[in-house]
Amino acid sequence: MSCSKELQQSNIMTCCHVVVIFFLMISRSLASPNILLFVADDMGYGDLSIYGHPTQEMGPIDQLALQGLKFTSWYAAHTFCSPSRAAMLTGRLPVRYNFVGGYTVLIHKHYLGLPLEEYTIAEALRDQGYATGIVGKWHLGVNAHTDTDGSFLPHNQGFSHPATILPYTLFYDCDTTGVHRHQQNRNRCMIYRNSTIVQQPIKQGKLTATLVEDAKAFLYDHKDEPFFFLFSFPQVHTPMFNDVRFNKSSKRGEYGDQINEMSWAVGEVMATLSTLALDEKTLVIFLSDHGPHREICKEGGSSGIFKGGKGNFYEGGVRVPAIMRWTGVIPPGRVSSQVVSSMDLLPSLVSLVGGQLPNVHLDGENMLDKIFGKLELTDVNSGHFHKKDHDALKRDRALFFYCDNHLMAIRYKSFKVHFRTHPLASEEFILKNCPVAGVPIDTELHVEHYCNKTIQQEVPLLFNVEEDPGEMFALDWEDYQDISNEIQDILRKHQETLPEDLDGHGITSFDNTDMFVLPCCNKPYCICDFTSEPPCPAS
Amino acid sequence: MSCSKELQQSNIMTCCHVVVIFFLMISRSLASPNILLFVADDMGYGDLSIYGHPTQEMGPIDQLALQGLKFTSWYAAHTFCSPSRAAMLTGRLPVRYNFVGGYTVLIHKHYLGLPLEEYTIAEALRDQGYATGIVGKWHLGVNAHTDTDGSFLPHNQGFSHPATILPYTLFYDCDTTGVHRHQQNRNRCMIYRNSTIVQQPIKQGKLTATLVEDAKAFLYDHKDEPFFFLFSFPQVHTPMFNDVRFNKSSKRGEYGDQINEMSWAVGEVMATLSTLALDEKTLVIFLSDHGPHREICKEGGSSGIFKGGKGNFYEGGVRVPAIMRWTGVIPPGRVSSQVVSSMDLLPSLVSLVGGQLPNVHLDGENMLDKIFGKLELTDVNSGHFHKKDHDALKRDRALFFYCDNHLMAIRYKSFKVHFRTHPLASEEFILKNCPVAGVPIDTELHVEHYCNKTIQQEVPLLFNVEEDPGEMFALDWEDYQDISNEIQDILRKHQETLPEDLDGHGITSFDNTDMFVLPCCNKPYCICDFTSEPPCPAS
Repeated sequence: MSCSKELQQSNIMTCCHVVVIFFLMISRSLASPNILLFVADDMGYGDLSIYGHPTQEMGPIDQLALQGLKFTSWYAAHTFCSPSRAAMLTGRLPVRYNFVGGYTVLIHKHYLGLPLEEYTIAEALRDQGYATGIVGKWHLGVNAHTDTDGSFLPHNQGFSHPATILPYTLFYDCDTTGVHRHQQNRNRCMIYRNSTIVQQPIKQGKLTATLVEDAKAFLYDHKDEPFFFLFSFPQVHTPMFNDVRFNKSSKRGEYGDQINEMSWAVGEVMATLSTLALDEKTLVIFLSDHGPHREICKEGGSSGIFKGGKGNFYEGGVRVPAIMRWTGVIPPGRVSSQVVSSMDLLPSLVSLVGGQLPNVHLDGENMLDKIFGKLELTDVNSGHFHKKDHDALKRDRALFFYCDNHLMAIRYKSFKVHFRTHPLASEEFILKNCPVAGVPIDTELHVEHYCNKTIQQEVPLLFNVEEDPGEMFALDWEDYQDISNEIQDILRKHQETLPEDLDGHGITSFDNTDMFVLPCCNKPYCICDFTSEPPCPAS
Repeated sequence: MSCSKELQQSNIMTCCHVVVIFFLMISRSLASPNILLFVADDMGYGDLSIYGHPTQEMGPIDQLALQGLKFTSWYAAHTFCSPSRAAMLTGRLPVRYNFVGGYTVLIHKHYLGLPLEEYTIAEALRDQGYATGIVGKWHLGVNAHTDTDGSFLPHNQGFSHPATILPYTLFYDCDTTGVHRHQQNRNRCMIYRNSTIVQQPIKQGKLTATLVEDAKAFLYDHKDEPFFFLFSFPQVHTPMFNDVRFNKSSKRGEYGDQINEMSWAVGEVMATLSTLALDEKTLVIFLSDHGPHREICKEGGSSGIFKGGKGNFYEGGVRVPAIMRWTGVIPPGRVSSQVVSSMDLLPSLVSLVGGQLPNVHLDGENMLDKIFGKLELTDVNSGHFHKKDHDALKRDRALFFYCDNHLMAIRYKSFKVHFRTHPLASEEFILKNCPVAGVPIDTELHVEHYCNKTIQQEVPLLFNVEEDPGEMFALDWEDYQDISNEIQDILRKHQETLPEDLDGHGITSFDNTDMFVLPCCNKPYCICDFTSEPPCPAS
């Protein structure tokens, strides 16, 4: 259905009308819009006020949603950082380029990273003449052969202007409080600028402010050319940290303090964008890389209504908060339940700027025409909803979820099929490990990292995740023979696009090596601080 | 703290400034504002899009929140309909007037109701010269002595203009589909106008439209005088129903269709308000009477992040969606986490219109000065949050929750203490009773109605519901000795206000009688329909 009678008869606006307005807006709003992408770490679907958290304060992140479009069915490609981010930057499932195996995320034992031959959003936009910048968490590899080659750092993946970079992630060793690990090795945590370690261990307190100053400097430096900037937050991964001025800023406690600091950071960057009169020239996107780490009790986030979280493929593990704002293009106060994948970013953004898609199989699709071009934006300002709007949407798109080479789940139409599942931490498990006030007694509380420990379902689990978003009530396949057939067809076609041998070797497993590869600024001490005060923005 | 230096130093606005502006607005906006109160039945905290439901469509209810103030810590007084609504209308705990006992809610076996000597919001506002109207669910009693005296119907409780009234609630017997009870007695369901039964059994399809037309007629009839109107939805109680034009209007399924119909109804009434140029003269309130009926699987609503639901006193049972809109007085897009009780409505509204409070102990407080007068409204439009705003709030207010005469729980400061708890339906229980697709196999799936089946906690459970809204992680009393002492003090003072003998007899228990009291329009048939087409609004 494109411009049906039904919609034309509506008194609100016609479908055609909207499409025309959108394309006029797009063309007026420019040929080469800037792209500003914020990515949070481990933030759950239910962690923001605008997504329903009852005590998290409203802030500039929520404001982005009120000024633009909030997504309710945006999926990360994976439930762990490294593969999720690889998929986001390449538009492709990690199984296609063997970015799989073992512990699933990159740690200090790996001379590995996102394969350099993969074409990232940054490379695609750089090839269109964009200035490409990044700050914050990377987690897609550091070194390939020696502990100093830096082969996999952002500057080799299309980011021409990397600033302060955390090569791995925040983890318990980085904790400055000593709460999480008594014998922590804090020098396992370091910051790069470009290919050089400038701080080891990390001084967390001013970290967010440093990232903000880097971001502002980038905006000032590149305000007159098209740019792509990735602001990749170290939050809200444990160990928790924030500048002292955000201590007790949240009723919700420390976790909320961190979100408030993130929100402050977003607000600072948005204010700079506004000062530079770039609001209408910039598509701003905010999203999380996957669900929250529920097993660490009150130090982990909230999946909201969803089951599961980080480390499994229930909706809580992969459905993420996601917001788009584009002043003058996206009307304010919209909500979309269109199924979107983070892998859609590459084809969408490349198409948006008129670039060429790489000549490889993409798992993402250009979703911008669906997002902007169809009447599937509920206009909360008018308060009207259209009875059959959602029937008019292209919702037959399938998303495939893999852990290593194992097909875990498919989201298709209103349905989610689980072929394999991760063991899910029960409420009892969580209570046992966090007996008093939600403080973890075991500092090594992990989710299941090994994909070969997932459970094959004898009969795949089928849920209608629109009617039953909590994946409580499995459906009986006998009642869904048509869907079963469609899914089998889709799966067959999908499998034809995959490498024949899926048992290739990818990331060296955590188990397979005793090697410890610690990037180090001054052997053998690995302690340094070459950072100065944050750079001042150009005036 | 009233107008601290800290807040004055803020660049956004000063506390004093806001207070002054508010009172100017109030005084300009009128001495006798209209009050329009929408109350939903069994709607959970997580059921609306604006409260985080991922597939529920946005609609006019959500729009109210965007135009005004969304509450995140609004508590119903009880987790069942009759006592919750009694408390809401009187500002007093039902235990003070023996509106307790047995099955907890009124059914056809009761010659009982909200005691007539209790002073309701409707009586208070009527005594101030307000036109007082009501449509929809009542559930506070019908007859006192005979099956036709109608002693407890709304016209005897302060509502001068009752229109279409459901005296009890929707329940399985009312089901027109036959899905929920094979041998249903549909004539147990009837509609009153004033003290007369006009339809028996209920024709559900056009019910919402009828209520809307009644509401519009009331607004037209009383547009030139101050009014109080209670629009009490029969939704979203089972059995589910909606007009056919809302069939499949929601991705979420039938439950969502009902919310869409409710939202449509709110939109219709708001449009009338606007047509009559009453937006700035009317305080609009929307809230639910308690949490969702989780045990009926996909036919029940969502508590969102909270534990529990209808039938227990965890946050999911009593924390409800609540919205206020007052054009020109409440700035748009605000969120408040101020602790509010539905029992605050009576003292707040009576104070607002300059009336006299009844000379009895009220459990509610006038919260409007706290809501409007303090800087505790996060301004999501500016996107700023104030680090210590929430410290500036009066949050030491205590809310007491009773089941019958049993003290169940106290909410105090950030804390919730459970002295007794209801058995909570486990996920296993729910799955067992709804094995396929969330359809209940037992049509009589009930929550625990009998307060004497609650469990005394040897050591009361203590939670910080701001840091741990899901009530997952009990605190250790040893670490909270100060709070323990404060709670003991508060409880002692509270108990001094209660009747000495709490073991009086209230509502006749379901178990205590074989009597069946069926109001009937034409004995012995009890089948009739004297409703005509919905009245047209005056033009």
